[in-house]
Amino acid sequence: MDVETNSLPTFESVQEAATNIQGAANKTPVMTSRTLDDIVGARVFLKCENYQRAGAFKFRGAYNALSKLDASEKKKGILTYSSGNHAQAIALAGRLLGVRTTIIMPTNAPAAKLAATRGYGAEVILFDPDETKREELAAKIREERGDITIIPPYDHVDVIAGQGTAAFELLHEVSDLDVVFAPCGGGGLLSGTALAVKGMSSGCRVIGVEPELADDATRSFHTGTLQKISNPPTIADGLRTPYLGKITFPLVRENVDDMITVTEGEIVEAMIFLWTRMKIVAEPSGAVSLAGAMKSSGNLDGRRIGVILSGGNVDMNTAFKLFSGELQ
Amino acid sequence: MDVETNSLPTFESVQEAATNIQGAANKTPVMTSRTLDDIVGARVFLKCENYQRAGAFKFRGAYNALSKLDASEKKKGILTYSSGNHAQAIALAGRLLGVRTTIIMPTNAPAAKLAATRGYGAEVILFDPDETKREELAAKIREERGDITIIPPYDHVDVIAGQGTAAFELLHEVSDLDVVFAPCGGGGLLSGTALAVKGMSSGCRVIGVEPELADDATRSFHTGTLQKISNPPTIADGLRTPYLGKITFPLVRENVDDMITVTEGEIVEAMIFLWTRMKIVAEPSGAVSLAGAMKSSGNLDGRRIGVILSGGNVDMNTAFKLFSGELQ
Repeated sequence: MDVETNSLPTFESVQEAATNIQGAANKTPVMTSRTLDDIVGARVFLKCENYQRAGAFKFRGAYNALSKLDASEKKKGILTYSSGNHAQAIALAGRLLGVRTTIIMPTNAPAAKLAATRGYGAEVILFDPDETKREELAAKIREERGDITIIPPYDHVDVIAGQGTAAFELLHEVSDLDVVFAPCGGGGLLSGTALAVKGMSSGCRVIGVEPELADDATRSFHTGTLQKISNPPTIADGLRTPYLGKITFPLVRENVDDMITVTEGEIVEAMIFLWTRMKIVAEPSGAVSLAGAMKSSGNLDGRRIGVILSGGNVDMNTAFKLFSGELQ
Repeated sequence: MDVETNSLPTFESVQEAATNIQGAANKTPVMTSRTLDDIVGARVFLKCENYQRAGAFKFRGAYNALSKLDASEKKKGILTYSSGNHAQAIALAGRLLGVRTTIIMPTNAPAAKLAATRGYGAEVILFDPDETKREELAAKIREERGDITIIPPYDHVDVIAGQGTAAFELLHEVSDLDVVFAPCGGGGLLSGTALAVKGMSSGCRVIGVEPELADDATRSFHTGTLQKISNPPTIADGLRTPYLGKITFPLVRENVDDMITVTEGEIVEAMIFLWTRMKIVAEPSGAVSLAGAMKSSGNLDGRRIGVILSGGNVDMNTAFKLFSGELQ
């Protein structure tokens, strides 16, 4: 049900998405640090999607997907499911584009995220994740509402193309990158990033980074067979997705050069560096790609590397517990 | 002893400083937020000096002052006193310009700041603030070292001119500002900001913001007589300076349009907004100017306002205690 089309997105889809989101999405800043360069042993360029609208890259894909709906689809509204950044992104994109949005969220979603999603004007339908599967609930609501369009969080051509626009902007701003690191949950950001990078600079390598505790995509990538994981206990809550999608898996296999994993401690270390030295608030998932770059420092001698910092939506109490070692 | 010259800096001094620091100082980003615009009721442009080298605007003045030393002065090295951001800024500028730096710091300075200052290669001389006055110690060392140059933290022509370059950059990047808010401790940043603003856009108002608990400059401004305060207990540790300087006081009186104060609670509120909504790590002193803008929201209808966010050097434990209400 996640897959609305059989065709895969291309570099041209990313280019088109860049035009679609122009003026609506923030052109996020690229930040650098001489201290970070010394640590990594390379010139590092951070593409800061924590400064994206609604606090994460997710707005790019959400806005692109909604902007491509025809008048009749827009009138019916759209349906999605997410407990995280995709929910807020869809809600905000819907408000900006005049599309009614309905979002299925678990009863245990953080109160702040529920409030933010409702604050953007979305209708939120709560479900008990112990009793109901969100995909089944979505199918039921879709039926009731006469074939309402579903925009899933990552396995959707227009969502993937939209997520690719972050790397698209990065490579326009920073020339001659040798490697780009991106985090991987369901693979929407990673596969979009790879499409953008390979379309603009075929010699530039793309490396996906996952938490060691949620390494399904890394194993899928290396074995060629889809691997799954159930509710992994990583602090990187945006990357707890159980498996790559029907669209993202082939894209990752084809365009990504390597996949690596990082430990929970390495994620916290990267997060602390971002907060204390660079004054950048990144969520755990947002720091995963930097953790991957730091871990690869021995192999990056003097190179120019891009890092997609995916988002900054983290509860302050959670962050401080991580920093003080309470949650590790 | 603080004042090395009788002449006051001018707009031309700021222009010259902008040239001196080019390539060495970061051209810091200007950040915006639609949510913030709604709260303040104006279009707000944050000049983010927390992204300056060594984490605060202080590097601008320090580098400018050191770059103007002649060969003989550079050879002798320089001396300063600071427990905060000026110490690190001078140490880093000294390293970059090959000037030996000696910094008098209190024994109760935070360990992290001592380590950072030493890490940049400065010689640190510790003193017990209960037993010794830092100015007297500085005079003694100066005598011992054959008329070594002293670069005080704010009351120095080249330091003030350097601090003005933040507003200079802001007004070059953002046109038609109606008001600029800057925090005030010893008045180096505020008087430099006012020089830059009045030199570039005479109709633009400059408003200084102080913690209510450290309102000496506000009272000095309104009465025309220098007011002092002793070790005020504000969380904005960068603004605990006891009084305006011999150079900064007349500059503030002449070029600043108004001075206002904010409560400790308003500082924390601005800080929390920056961290959670804008993903920007600001120290308490760095959030004071935004607190002033937020407090003035009723009077800013539709205007374009600039806010100098002065720095981001804050210990995470301190920040957490502030956010959880423990230190308020």
